[in-house]
Amino acid sequence: MDKDKLVKEITAIDDDFSKWYSDICVKAELMAYSDLQGFIIYLPKGYAIWERIKEYLDNEFKKTNHKNVYFPLLIPEGLFQKEKDHIKGFAPEAAMVTTTGVNDLSERLIIRPTSEILFSNFYKTKVKSYRDLPILYNQWCSVLRWEKTTRPFLRGKEFLWQEGHTVHESKEDAISETLRMLEIYNKMGKELLAIPFICGKKTENEKFAGAVATYSIEALMKDGKALQSGTSHYFGQNFSKPFDIKFTNKENKLEYAYQTSWGATTRLIGAIIMMHGDSDGLVLPPRIAPTQVAIIPVGISEDDLNLLKIKNSLEKNNIRYMVDFSNKSMGYKFSEAEMNGIPIRITAGKNELKNNEVTIFKRNTREKFLLKIDELDKKIPELLDTIHNEMYEKAKKFVTDHTTYVKTYDEFKEVLLKNPGYIKLDCNIEAEKIIKDSLGATARIILDEKPELKKCPITGKKVDYRILFAKAY
Amino acid sequence: MDKDKLVKEITAIDDDFSKWYSDICVKAELMAYSDLQGFIIYLPKGYAIWERIKEYLDNEFKKTNHKNVYFPLLIPEGLFQKEKDHIKGFAPEAAMVTTTGVNDLSERLIIRPTSEILFSNFYKTKVKSYRDLPILYNQWCSVLRWEKTTRPFLRGKEFLWQEGHTVHESKEDAISETLRMLEIYNKMGKELLAIPFICGKKTENEKFAGAVATYSIEALMKDGKALQSGTSHYFGQNFSKPFDIKFTNKENKLEYAYQTSWGATTRLIGAIIMMHGDSDGLVLPPRIAPTQVAIIPVGISEDDLNLLKIKNSLEKNNIRYMVDFSNKSMGYKFSEAEMNGIPIRITAGKNELKNNEVTIFKRNTREKFLLKIDELDKKIPELLDTIHNEMYEKAKKFVTDHTTYVKTYDEFKEVLLKNPGYIKLDCNIEAEKIIKDSLGATARIILDEKPELKKCPITGKKVDYRILFAKAY
Repeated sequence: MDKDKLVKEITAIDDDFSKWYSDICVKAELMAYSDLQGFIIYLPKGYAIWERIKEYLDNEFKKTNHKNVYFPLLIPEGLFQKEKDHIKGFAPEAAMVTTTGVNDLSERLIIRPTSEILFSNFYKTKVKSYRDLPILYNQWCSVLRWEKTTRPFLRGKEFLWQEGHTVHESKEDAISETLRMLEIYNKMGKELLAIPFICGKKTENEKFAGAVATYSIEALMKDGKALQSGTSHYFGQNFSKPFDIKFTNKENKLEYAYQTSWGATTRLIGAIIMMHGDSDGLVLPPRIAPTQVAIIPVGISEDDLNLLKIKNSLEKNNIRYMVDFSNKSMGYKFSEAEMNGIPIRITAGKNELKNNEVTIFKRNTREKFLLKIDELDKKIPELLDTIHNEMYEKAKKFVTDHTTYVKTYDEFKEVLLKNPGYIKLDCNIEAEKIIKDSLGATARIILDEKPELKKCPITGKKVDYRILFAKAY
Repeated sequence: MDKDKLVKEITAIDDDFSKWYSDICVKAELMAYSDLQGFIIYLPKGYAIWERIKEYLDNEFKKTNHKNVYFPLLIPEGLFQKEKDHIKGFAPEAAMVTTTGVNDLSERLIIRPTSEILFSNFYKTKVKSYRDLPILYNQWCSVLRWEKTTRPFLRGKEFLWQEGHTVHESKEDAISETLRMLEIYNKMGKELLAIPFICGKKTENEKFAGAVATYSIEALMKDGKALQSGTSHYFGQNFSKPFDIKFTNKENKLEYAYQTSWGATTRLIGAIIMMHGDSDGLVLPPRIAPTQVAIIPVGISEDDLNLLKIKNSLEKNNIRYMVDFSNKSMGYKFSEAEMNGIPIRITAGKNELKNNEVTIFKRNTREKFLLKIDELDKKIPELLDTIHNEMYEKAKKFVTDHTTYVKTYDEFKEVLLKNPGYIKLDCNIEAEKIIKDSLGATARIILDEKPELKKCPITGKKVDYRILFAKAY
């Protein structure tokens, strides 16, 4: 049967999570591999998810007075070397333009891995007085990092993102910007992606090259591994000093400016897949789904009055839908809509229509029930909200069920094996290194919780904070 | 006076058109020069214009069933060499990645100057049957071309654009797609940019590297030079043959597919400046203006009831406005709003408000008049439409006044000197080369008009078509 043919090609989620993930990426036509290792092609169904993320974030950025700009793709190597930690962090994975084929360049040019350098270099000419501040810029673009191991959406040599770069007149303003943007990412998880992020500050080991402090949103995937899904950095004066970004403050004194940067990437598509997907394919949260409703007509024509009524009720509510009149088998159509993660499937067959009904199928719970056509107008928008909430609650429960507070190293190891997920531990930076080196679990964030222990169970030394550990992508 | 201070920094349009243009780009804060020659920074006011163009076109593309995708930034050099004309056209200006700083690459990678190659390489795996066709993809991105002489927005080493790449089952379908997209660009001129484009086919000399036929939209700038503002190419099987894009047609026979590509770029920002601007700065068509109305309050406070009423009437109509409460002088504020090309300025001063009136200033005609506050709700949206239409009609008249039909080479030369603009001539491809080499004017398009002359006045040979000539950017 056609249905089987399509679905059997996906590895079951419990058999091989990693293979299941790649299967979905390809079979749900989110992306295709290009000829160049580590570079993917974002196909319409994948790119449309990114467009909705963009739309949501762009709107939030604009509401908070951020302006979009576009800075050059290339950074002269000399300029890149101004901030020492930053260059150390990014140099090993820099793609460099050295020639035009006809002429060699006099200086090597780095394809942006991130644009702190270019923004800072511009800000030094732009910022003169506290009246010029804050400057709240953002850009949507692609960046390159020459990663060795790559996986679709999660880690690539090229990825799409937004990078915000802001300048402020005080430490307080810059920190509150850093946290404000973190909160926007967090809200996006709740409102758009149905993903419960955990937010917090990174440890010294895990912070961004050049930052005073890095904050991140972390998501827990179905295999118990964490995915860093967005970051917000407070730079203090780390860039303004080497780049000489000075302004006259309200006391009429020259002062170095305070900066931030923050970014979210197409990695979020990976988070959606690994948070919600199942062995039948993608399960998309309704607000991000490019197609929210798939109508499968059975034995009726395109101008069937009931079909027009159904379409009309969806259009009235601005619901994104498709009608599958292709000549594929019924089973194939069902299985394809499931693979693509379409939240609601409406089957409109002759028998049901006789009673002015259609069959509704909810992708997330696989529930099936009948609805009167006259009710669709009211029920479908409600149902989409219900599905969103169900998906969010389910994900939240998953996180709760996979978060363990441990008091000993043995417990830590046992949980990591038997119930992988987040592990909370009261410890210090030395313990963090030991855990990373021996177990491969890393500090995701410093928790905003008071440690219970006084002495770190691993090093025996003073406890500094409670950390959320996990193996991570 | 402050007003003078700001405006005097712009070169008058009649003194030095080229300097006037660069002055506006910088003083209206549309862009800034980066440290890297030929690369510009798109600042908020410039980028916001591009965002409106994007929004308009993206909507038109989606209405006509096109899907957005994203293909890699880099093209392996070997792949690039598959289509011979194409590589000849683009190789001399290719930026090449050769190293990661740590390791040299085994093959040089070209930063995309355009992406026919990558799309074609993907289509060969995707296209199997006529049922897979048409494929209608578009991508928004930046491209690099290592141009020697660069000018903001008009010609740069990097620019932003959209590139559509489509595949069809027949020559007819592909040609009609080519023309359909040309018409969308044309409509954008009329509806959004207030620019009357002239559309048509390019001559053999001027067509795109690899195309069977290139169509373009041409705009005439205030200095009488033409600006190619968007192109649409019909490729026939020129790419499908070297890339082996074959499909089974309805007669069950294998056939090479037919392709098109079409693009519009940030060059359109340059077209807007040079079509509508004047010696006081930018003049923006209302539908593209990031800010449509500037309110300048005189001697009233932020919570003045009349001001709230004005703001309310604008918000109700979704009008993009700003209120200038900065501590700059009145003259400076006026001059700044003019420089930025804001279509309508509303001065709300104590005296006018006593009579429930405000002063309206129309940037395009510099007219000033009073309006009752109660009328704003109805009048401002009307006024924005009026301004759009006035700007379009003025531009149309300019084109008509600067289009001359000539019958002799002497006339051609005289018009080119005395009334530069479009010159129509009945001629052939040899004459085109002579005119280009001796006078620097190029064939913009082949006109859809029947030639009157039988013999070309330059070569004495047979007339092939009527051509629209102009000096061009």
